Amino acid sequence: TTYNIASIPGDGIGVDVTEAAEAVLNKLAETVGTFKFNFTTFDWSSKKYLERGWYMPEDGMQQLSKYDAIYFGAVGSPDVPDHISLWGLILPIRKYNNQYVNVRPTRVLPGTVAPLAQCQKRPQDIDWMIIRENSEGEYAGQGGTTHENSPDTIATEVAIFTRVGIERIMRFAFETAKSRPRKKLTMVTKSNAQRHGMVLWDKVFHEVAKEYEGVVEWDKMLVDAMTVRMVNKPESVDTIVATNLHADILSDLAAALAGSIGIAPSANLDPTRKYPSMFEPIHGSAPDIAGQGIANPVGAFWSAAEMVRWVGQGKLDKVADDFMQAIENVTSNPKTRTKDMGGSANTKETTEAVIKQIDVV
Amino acid sequence: TTYNIASIPGDGIGVDVTEAAEAVLNKLAETVGTFKFNFTTFDWSSKKYLERGWYMPEDGMQQLSKYDAIYFGAVGSPDVPDHISLWGLILPIRKYNNQYVNVRPTRVLPGTVAPLAQCQKRPQDIDWMIIRENSEGEYAGQGGTTHENSPDTIATEVAIFTRVGIERIMRFAFETAKSRPRKKLTMVTKSNAQRHGMVLWDKVFHEVAKEYEGVVEWDKMLVDAMTVRMVNKPESVDTIVATNLHADILSDLAAALAGSIGIAPSANLDPTRKYPSMFEPIHGSAPDIAGQGIANPVGAFWSAAEMVRWVGQGKLDKVADDFMQAIENVTSNPKTRTKDMGGSANTKETTEAVIKQIDVV
Ligand SMILES: CC(C)[C@H](C(=O)O)[C@@H](O)C(=O)O
Ligand SMILES: CC(C)[C@H](C(=O)O)[C@@H](O)C(=O)O
Repeated sequence: TTYNIASIPGDGIGVDVTEAAEAVLNKLAETVGTFKFNFTTFDWSSKKYLERGWYMPEDGMQQLSKYDAIYFGAVGSPDVPDHISLWGLILPIRKYNNQYVNVRPTRVLPGTVAPLAQCQKRPQDIDWMIIRENSEGEYAGQGGTTHENSPDTIATEVAIFTRVGIERIMRFAFETAKSRPRKKLTMVTKSNAQRHGMVLWDKVFHEVAKEYEGVVEWDKMLVDAMTVRMVNKPESVDTIVATNLHADILSDLAAALAGSIGIAPSANLDPTRKYPSMFEPIHGSAPDIAGQGIANPVGAFWSAAEMVRWVGQGKLDKVADDFMQAIENVTSNPKTRTKDMGGSANTKETTEAVIKQIDVV
Repeated sequence: TTYNIASIPGDGIGVDVTEAAEAVLNKLAETVGTFKFNFTTFDWSSKKYLERGWYMPEDGMQQLSKYDAIYFGAVGSPDVPDHISLWGLILPIRKYNNQYVNVRPTRVLPGTVAPLAQCQKRPQDIDWMIIRENSEGEYAGQGGTTHENSPDTIATEVAIFTRVGIERIMRFAFETAKSRPRKKLTMVTKSNAQRHGMVLWDKVFHEVAKEYEGVVEWDKMLVDAMTVRMVNKPESVDTIVATNLHADILSDLAAALAGSIGIAPSANLDPTRKYPSMFEPIHGSAPDIAGQGIANPVGAFWSAAEMVRWVGQGKLDKVADDFMQAIENVTSNPKTRTKDMGGSANTKETTEAVIKQIDVV
């Protein structure tokens, strides 16, 4: 089998780590021998935007639609306002391709230091799977500005929640929880203060929950209280489902609490598989260290492992697990992990170490 | 001087801790001798709502308008949906009374254990002041539901941002930062993904920032990245300003990181002093332990200290500081703090200990 991957390195260290991820994925395919990757690079970046005024060509989405998956580095540049770069590239790709789920696995990888005293003793207390609604809610893009340049300017952000959108993310979240050892799901809202969309979210949740009675154990939290629980009782958390904005915040907090903000992965999935799904490390473009060969490629590798799992449709789960093991072997050794993880390696050395490990595991 | 206080114990342990706070405030006034408090209790609660169908009478706001301040316990009951109870009592009081600032001081009080390993060594690394926009944004209450009870239901939450609303909160935040030793302000948004209201927030921030050039040092963060900074570099944070929802989340996280979720205070301020301001501990009504005499009254005392500071208009700052010292002397002793803080006292014992300390400090 050949998997055709649209590769979008984007900006800054996105370029460094995408190159590293491709090398490692090619090695993985070669070692396993039953599949291969065919990467096509799309130079859609802030640099190009500044040259030609657009991030993606008009038929960009059609071009992407031919691929089995999209691999994404990072977007963001000091020379372009963030809302322009993000709405020029990453957000429209998520939306157009029906990637209504954003999955963020969170664990304390060997070699990382979790900042909570409790987790320094018991890193296994953090083992979370965050399911983020990725297509609507607070990121619907609606709203506007009235009386601009007047003392009376008002601007709105309109969060849109649809029954269809809520139902499908809830179902995905319950299925995910069901597939995990502890089979627990926490549903997050702010329905005490936000009484329209958030109340619908509650209502649909309860309907879907009925289908999983006795199978998945669930509870509900307000988003503010959820941050408290993640800090005070991390071991009580398993799978989390939350809106686009709430889960955005909770997943960054999660990565920080796991000591892995620089290495956490994310998967933007279209569970219907009609459109390509997209895999990206959550770290940004880090323009200050771009091109110096020192970026940590582990988030890119972890995201690549999730991509392997996804395109394999169940047939490559073992391969993805072994790949993760190879990555963890590398992060546990200070000689093969990068400086941000207290190690001494550069991007190339870490990449070569993972390539070597792939032979071993 | 007599300060007339409208006291709203509300639900659950709100009743227990309000009683404790009144006793302590009366003692404080008696000891200082230059002012006194006159409390009028309003029995506006979920229990009453269930009996008579309303939280506040029609002229409730007019009644409150005669007071120098409002002291609030807690609202929330298992028998009333949260969005009903909150929109029945606390949220309309905040809105009607022009309480456009919500202030949340965050420190590691003696006797509390901060969960970050770093702060167990250096509790002083957390010394934050969170300024929350409290009148508009994501809590504007706008939005609605269309096609209810249909597979096509859609619901919206409309966040409203006005130039006037942003300007006044920014000014308050800069003034607060200016009054603190480190004079630093971090402005939080999500303007990369939310490109209308959040972009206006950015713009107005930059305008106001010009007035404080060379006086207050500022920076900007995205709300997701801000959670990471609070976990990884708490000592780099001083004053924070954020929207209603963002600051709601960040302030709960802050209290958790300071180990003080059960004892953190909040002040809802109308800086114009045209309407009464309101002081409330951030803990909820905790119906499971209500009326048992074991609730921790420290959040109520800390909020009371902020009320003293506010009504004193600068003349009672020393009194408020001494009051805080008395509270901290009590929390540092396991015999006088409550069980949730690893102590052995009940509500009454902690209250009496503070009363005794007021004589000493
Ligand atoms: C870059 C930004 C738009 C993005 C988001 O908020 O979705 C990022 O924070 C993420 O979490 O993937
Ligand atoms: C009770 C609730 C409406 C409230 C809020 O979200 O404002 C609480 O969480 C708070 O922070 O004061």
